[in-house]
Amino acid sequence: MDDPRWLTPQQQRAWRAHLTAHRLLMHQLDRELQDTGLSINDYEILVNLSESSEKRMRMSDLADATVQSRSRLSHQISRMESAGLVARENCEDDRRGTYAVLTAQGWETIAKVAPDHVASVRRHFIDRLTPGQVKEIEEIYAPIVAHLQGKQP
Amino acid sequence: MDDPRWLTPQQQRAWRAHLTAHRLLMHQLDRELQDTGLSINDYEILVNLSESSEKRMRMSDLADATVQSRSRLSHQISRMESAGLVARENCEDDRRGTYAVLTAQGWETIAKVAPDHVASVRRHFIDRLTPGQVKEIEEIYAPIVAHLQGKQP
Repeated sequence: MDDPRWLTPQQQRAWRAHLTAHRLLMHQLDRELQDTGLSINDYEILVNLSESSEKRMRMSDLADATVQSRSRLSHQISRMESAGLVARENCEDDRRGTYAVLTAQGWETIAKVAPDHVASVRRHFIDRLTPGQVKEIEEIYAPIVAHLQGKQP
Repeated sequence: MDDPRWLTPQQQRAWRAHLTAHRLLMHQLDRELQDTGLSINDYEILVNLSESSEKRMRMSDLADATVQSRSRLSHQISRMESAGLVARENCEDDRRGTYAVLTAQGWETIAKVAPDHVASVRRHFIDRLTPGQVKEIEEIYAPIVAHLQGKQP
C-alpha cells in the first residue's frame, strides 16, 4: 500500500477552520434561536416548506433537501407536529408518499422568526466577508455539492 | 423596527452552498468510515486525544475542541468506553476534573483508520480545490472561528 498522503499543514488548517467555523456557527445560530422555541433544524424545515409550492414537501424530498435520514427526519417532524408547526398528510395518488405540510401556525412562526435569524447569519458570517469572499464561497462549495449529490444513494 | 436586511441572491447561494456542502461531506465521510465501526464524531474524538500530550484531555476541553455540549460528549464517551477505545480517569488534584484517555486499542484504531479517512477528505474536498482556494478557505473561516470563540460562555 502506498504511503498515506497526509494533508499539508496549510490543507489541515483550512479543513479544520471549515469544520470548526461550521460547528461554532451552528451552535451560535441555535443559541440565538432559543427564545423562539425553534432549533436550527426546525428552522430549516420551516424554510424549506415555506419556499415550496403549496407549502408542502414529500418527506423523502425534505430529507434530501435537509441532508438527513428519513428516520431522523420522521422523529423531528413528529416533534414539530406536536408543536403545531407542521402536519403530515398522505398522498392519495401514491401509497408511498407522505407529505409534510406547513400549518398556519408554522407559517406565522417562520415569518416572525426569519428577520432575527437572518440578522444572526449576517452578524456572525455574511457581513464578516467581502463580496469577493462571498462569491468565492459559492465557487468553492457549489461544485462540492454537485459532486456529492451524485453520490447519494 | 427596520426592514429586515434579507440576504442578496448571491449571499443566499453562498450560505446554502456552505451549509449543504458541509452536510453532504459529513454524510459521505461518515458513510466511508462505516466499515471501521467508527462514526465521524468518534473519529474526531480519537484524533483530538491522539494529538494531545499524554493522549488525554479534560472532558471540558474535549467538549470545546469538538464544539459540543458536555452532556452530549459524555454520552459519546460512554459509548466509546464500552467499545474499549477510551477510558475515563479522575484527576486527583482537581475534584471537577475528569479526563478522557485514549486506550492502546483506541490508538491502534486511529492509526489504522486515519489513512483511509484522510483519503476520503482529499477525494471529496481537498483535492477538488486549487491551492489558492485552500488558502482562501483558511482566510475566510479562521477569523469566523476567532470571532465565535470569543462568544463561547
